[in-house]
Amino acid sequence: MITLIATGGTISCTPAEGGLSPAADSTQLTRFLTAVQRDADVLPLMNKDSTDITADDMALIARAAADAYENGADGIIITHGTDTMAYTAAYLTCALDGIPIPVILTGSQLPFDAPDSDAPANLRNAFDAIGKGFTGVHILFGDKVLYGDRATKAHTRDVCAFVSPKEISGTVGEDIICMCPPPTEKPFTLRVPARTKVGAVRLTPYTTEDELYNAARLCPDGIVIEGFGLGGVPSRLIEAVSRISRECTVLLNTQCLFDGVDAGVYAVGSAAVKAGAKPVDMTTEAALARLMFLMI
Amino acid sequence: MITLIATGGTISCTPAEGGLSPAADSTQLTRFLTAVQRDADVLPLMNKDSTDITADDMALIARAAADAYENGADGIIITHGTDTMAYTAAYLTCALDGIPIPVILTGSQLPFDAPDSDAPANLRNAFDAIGKGFTGVHILFGDKVLYGDRATKAHTRDVCAFVSPKEISGTVGEDIICMCPPPTEKPFTLRVPARTKVGAVRLTPYTTEDELYNAARLCPDGIVIEGFGLGGVPSRLIEAVSRISRECTVLLNTQCLFDGVDAGVYAVGSAAVKAGAKPVDMTTEAALARLMFLMI
Repeated sequence: MITLIATGGTISCTPAEGGLSPAADSTQLTRFLTAVQRDADVLPLMNKDSTDITADDMALIARAAADAYENGADGIIITHGTDTMAYTAAYLTCALDGIPIPVILTGSQLPFDAPDSDAPANLRNAFDAIGKGFTGVHILFGDKVLYGDRATKAHTRDVCAFVSPKEISGTVGEDIICMCPPPTEKPFTLRVPARTKVGAVRLTPYTTEDELYNAARLCPDGIVIEGFGLGGVPSRLIEAVSRISRECTVLLNTQCLFDGVDAGVYAVGSAAVKAGAKPVDMTTEAALARLMFLMI
Repeated sequence: MITLIATGGTISCTPAEGGLSPAADSTQLTRFLTAVQRDADVLPLMNKDSTDITADDMALIARAAADAYENGADGIIITHGTDTMAYTAAYLTCALDGIPIPVILTGSQLPFDAPDSDAPANLRNAFDAIGKGFTGVHILFGDKVLYGDRATKAHTRDVCAFVSPKEISGTVGEDIICMCPPPTEKPFTLRVPARTKVGAVRLTPYTTEDELYNAARLCPDGIVIEGFGLGGVPSRLIEAVSRISRECTVLLNTQCLFDGVDAGVYAVGSAAVKAGAKPVDMTTEAALARLMFLMI
């Protein structure tokens, strides 16, 4: 049996004052299942626009998924708003590390009931992905399946909204093709984050040392610096990186969407690493989750 | 005649201790021109890894371009590192608003002298773009020409490194095709920024009110909030947006690369706008420049 956990999001949205708002409940979920001709245990866990999803919400989702697995689910589908889906997927990848069943997040750019909505196809494909070789956390959206910790929402409107900076885990076409390596067997226990005061800092040519000092003060559990290109940090900020690295984990990512960090290529990257920043080869969404779970 | 202004960047890089470092000088520029069989007045203005380009540097580049135009240049080519090229291009678009000649920024992912470097082709194409109908500031890189205020570096390695969230200004293939509308005639005077204390804030599900208050305190001239999706801001941050908007210009952008903001679609975007955030339909690089030049 499959467990369908609903958290809100556009897929569940209906018109309301001030704009679309989610309205996920058991009745709605049962109606969705009927429409896509699939069956599941339904769990309307929360009803949030994903912009409002917090770390506490992610912990609830992780707990619900772990419970469903313990109760014998063969697969878990989580409907979630697209706006923070990549953050939740990265969090769940850490929290559910080692879970031996597929945990598929999906959602849509248009409400389920809107004309030409992408919701029915995404939901149907999420069901059909179960049993195809996926284990662990993935996002299924549009034409592809993405590793839970290697996805970013890149398009605010396109129905293929998510991209991976590097590889994807599967494709969605006439059939759903899993491209994952065979899972490594390891014991599964639900993990809880050790830390939650983390943040991202996008560098600009106008960023000052004070901005870095304040980021480290407000996010003492770790910050992800989105540097330039392959991982460049301006020379004027290196002293600040050196100081904050003594008290707080400083990860060095890039603000470029594709191809990742290689901080040793340029002097401006090497200097940041020498100052204590740790280059990472992952999305900012994933780097934040890894900081929280001490999985760096 | 064309003026070639060099600012450093990978195109001018040679190996040095700690990684590649730029080494732009007249001798190097003359050698480049000989290699691509083109002619120009050369101006080695500065010699910086673009990670280290500041607003003051951008002002120098703008001044040099304005001077070249006043001295009769038919077109201006600026070689620049890729990492902050989009920021400088956005700045120059404001500073040189109305300039009736083409100002083309280019550079490369590999040093000019590296095997299979993209530098010679980019430089040659930049020369060949002059006289094709472009006016004002553009980036020519790889297979396309992009408006100076609608470009972002999306790839850290790919030779087609830049993307536009929406339209591009031209294509580079067997010929260079200008897709710009005819320029509107307006008087040109070099502009200087009215403000420089600006910054970007990338929201995450873990962002706190204190982070917004501190961003506004440290960047009193304006902040660009990179919200979720079409421009969502978490409900828990709306009060902070309302407070900081009274003292500081708050622009609302998205952290998604493509398709832009439409803050009225969801309640979480409408609330941010109601609280005082101004939605913008441009790159963060451009939004920061517009804040500095009061062109919002």
